[in-house]
Amino acid sequence: MRELRSLQLGKKCERPIFTHKPNTTMKDLSALRQVLEAYQDKHPFAREPRELYAPANYIMSLGGKRLRPLLALIAYQMFRPDELNQAMPIAYAVEVFHNFTLVHDDIMDDAPLRRGKPTVHTKWDSNTAILSGDVMLIAAYESLMQFKGEEQLSRLIRVFNRVAREVCEGQQMDMNFEVRDDVTIAEYLRMIELKTAVLLGGSLEMGAIGAGAKEQDITNLSEFGRNIGIAFQLQDDILDTFGDPDKFGKKIGGDIVQNKKTFLILKAIQQATPEQREKLEGYMQSNGMDEQQKITEVTAMLRELRIPELAATERDRFRDIAFGHLDQIQIAHEEKDLLYQMTEMVISREH
Amino acid sequence: MRELRSLQLGKKCERPIFTHKPNTTMKDLSALRQVLEAYQDKHPFAREPRELYAPANYIMSLGGKRLRPLLALIAYQMFRPDELNQAMPIAYAVEVFHNFTLVHDDIMDDAPLRRGKPTVHTKWDSNTAILSGDVMLIAAYESLMQFKGEEQLSRLIRVFNRVAREVCEGQQMDMNFEVRDDVTIAEYLRMIELKTAVLLGGSLEMGAIGAGAKEQDITNLSEFGRNIGIAFQLQDDILDTFGDPDKFGKKIGGDIVQNKKTFLILKAIQQATPEQREKLEGYMQSNGMDEQQKITEVTAMLRELRIPELAATERDRFRDIAFGHLDQIQIAHEEKDLLYQMTEMVISREH
Repeated sequence: MRELRSLQLGKKCERPIFTHKPNTTMKDLSALRQVLEAYQDKHPFAREPRELYAPANYIMSLGGKRLRPLLALIAYQMFRPDELNQAMPIAYAVEVFHNFTLVHDDIMDDAPLRRGKPTVHTKWDSNTAILSGDVMLIAAYESLMQFKGEEQLSRLIRVFNRVAREVCEGQQMDMNFEVRDDVTIAEYLRMIELKTAVLLGGSLEMGAIGAGAKEQDITNLSEFGRNIGIAFQLQDDILDTFGDPDKFGKKIGGDIVQNKKTFLILKAIQQATPEQREKLEGYMQSNGMDEQQKITEVTAMLRELRIPELAATERDRFRDIAFGHLDQIQIAHEEKDLLYQMTEMVISREH
Repeated sequence: MRELRSLQLGKKCERPIFTHKPNTTMKDLSALRQVLEAYQDKHPFAREPRELYAPANYIMSLGGKRLRPLLALIAYQMFRPDELNQAMPIAYAVEVFHNFTLVHDDIMDDAPLRRGKPTVHTKWDSNTAILSGDVMLIAAYESLMQFKGEEQLSRLIRVFNRVAREVCEGQQMDMNFEVRDDVTIAEYLRMIELKTAVLLGGSLEMGAIGAGAKEQDITNLSEFGRNIGIAFQLQDDILDTFGDPDKFGKKIGGDIVQNKKTFLILKAIQQATPEQREKLEGYMQSNGMDEQQKITEVTAMLRELRIPELAATERDRFRDIAFGHLDQIQIAHEEKDLLYQMTEMVISREH
C-alpha cells in the first residue's frame, strides 16, 4: 500500500504486497466482471415497445470499466464472499442508473460519441433518448427491488435516492459552471463530488449494506468511495491534458478545446500573475483559434505554473483520505486488495 | 348510481342518491384538495442548485385537477378515514410523478403551453427540463419512502415501478403512432391505458395498499381506476372535437389540426366507405389547409359516420366495467361517493 500511496504522476505504481493468503472464495476482478456480464446478458430490456428498450440495450452493451457495479460487488464480497449472487440486483441497479445518466447527459452536452460509438440521441433522436433514459432510471429501482432481504431494502432505496438526487445536482452545477466565470476550486470539487464521486461511494455503501456490514464499515467504505472518486476525477482532468495519447483513449486536450473549467484551469487562474491570467482567459474565450495551437499554448502555461504537480498533490490528498478510511475497516488486508487494484487501475490509467 | 350509469353525451348526469348518512370523518373533495395544497406548500423543492429545483416548483404550482393524488387519498380514506395524513407521501408521490411526465412529454411533443402557461422547456430550456424532470422522478420515490409502514412500503414501490414503466411504454407507443398509418383501435386503447389509465388505477391501488385494504378491494379499486381512466381519455377525445368551447378550456379541434390518431379518427377510418376514407386520409395528410375549414369538414364527416355516438358507447362500456368493479367493494355506498363525484366531474366536463 505504501507503493500505491506514493504514486506520483508519471510513475508506475507497484502492486501492494500482502502478507495474508488470499481468501479462496473471493472472486478477482476479472471473475467479477464475468459474473456481471453474465447477469447483464440474462437481463436484457426485452419488453415492447422495442423503440423504448433498444436504446437501453445499446448503451448497456457499449461496455466501459463497470466500475460502479464492481465496487458494489467488491463491498458485498468483503463481508459475505459466499453469497455474491445476492448482490447482483444492487450491482445491476447502479450500472443501469449510471447508464441512464450517460444517456441524458449526452443529450445535454450534445455529445456525438460515447465510448467511440454514436450516443443514443445521435443514433436515434433526443426524444427517444429522454424516454429511454427515463425507463432506465425506473429499471434501476426495479433491479434494486429484486434484492432479497426486506430488512435492508428500504435503506438501500433511501441511499439510492440520495445518491441519484445528488448526481442530478452535480450535473446541474456542471451546466451552471459553463456560463459562470467566477467558479471557485471549492465549488468545482463539490461539483465533481456530486456528479461522479457520490455514486462510487454509494455503490460501495449499498454493497456493504446489502451484506449486512457494521455501521462503521459501511461509513468508511462510503467515504473511501467518495474520496477516491474525487481523486479519480482529478486524475481524469490531469490525463485529459497531460496523459499519454496512446493510453488515454480520448484525444488529449479536449477539455482545453472545449474551454472546460477543470481543476487545472481553475488552479492556473488562481496561481497566475495578472498578465498570465489575462492571457489564459483570452484562450478560454477564443473559439476560432487553431485547436492544436491553443492546446499547445495553454498546456505550456499550465506547466509553467506547475499545475500538473499541484493537481497531483490535490489528487493524492483525496486518495490518502480515501485510504485512511479503508485502513479503518477491520478486515484482513487481502479483502481490501480488489479496491487497491481498482484504484491502481483507474489512477495509473496513463501508463 | 343508476343516473350516473345512464350518462349520455350531452346529457347532464345527476348526483347519485345514497341512502346512508355520510361518514363524518370523511373529507369531501374540496377538503381533500385543501389538505393536498397545504402539504405541497410545506414540501417545496427547496434545495440548491435552484436552477434544478425552480422548474420543479413551477410545474407543481400550475395547478390542475390533482386527480391522481385525490384518488390516492380517496382510496386510503375509504378504509382508514381517521389517519389521512399517513397517505400524504403516496398522494404527493403520484402527483410529482405525473408532473415529471408532463415536463418530459412537453419536450417530446414540443408543446409551448401547459395549463395556459409556458412549458418548462420553453420558459427555461430543454436541458433544464430534462434534468429537472429526472430529479422529480427521484423525488417521487423519495416521497413514497416517507410512508410510515414498512410492511406496505416495498409493495408500494413495486406497484409504483410497474406503473411508472407502463406510463413510459404508453408514451413511446403514442410517439410511434405519429409515424404509423396502420394503428388499430385495440392498439390505441392499449396506448391510452398505459399512458393515462394505469396511473389513475395505480393511485387508487397505492392508496388502498397504504390503508391495508383487503386484496380483493385493492384489485377492484385498481381495475376501477384503470377502466375509468380509459373512459376519461375517450371523453377527452370526444370533447376535443365536440365539446362546448366555453367549457372545454382548450381550443376545439386541436386534435384534428394536429392530425392526431384519436379514437374518433381511427373509428371513422374503420366505419368509412372507401371514398370517405380516402377523403379523411387526405385531410390527415394536409398540413397547409386552412385550419378552421379542416376542423369543420372533418367534424362534419365524423358526425355523418355517427362517431360521437360510437365513441360515447365505447366510453360508457369502460365506465360500466369500472363501476362494476366499484360495486364489488364491500363498503358503504357513501364511502364510494367521492369516486362517483370525481367521475362525474371529469366525464361531464363539457357542461
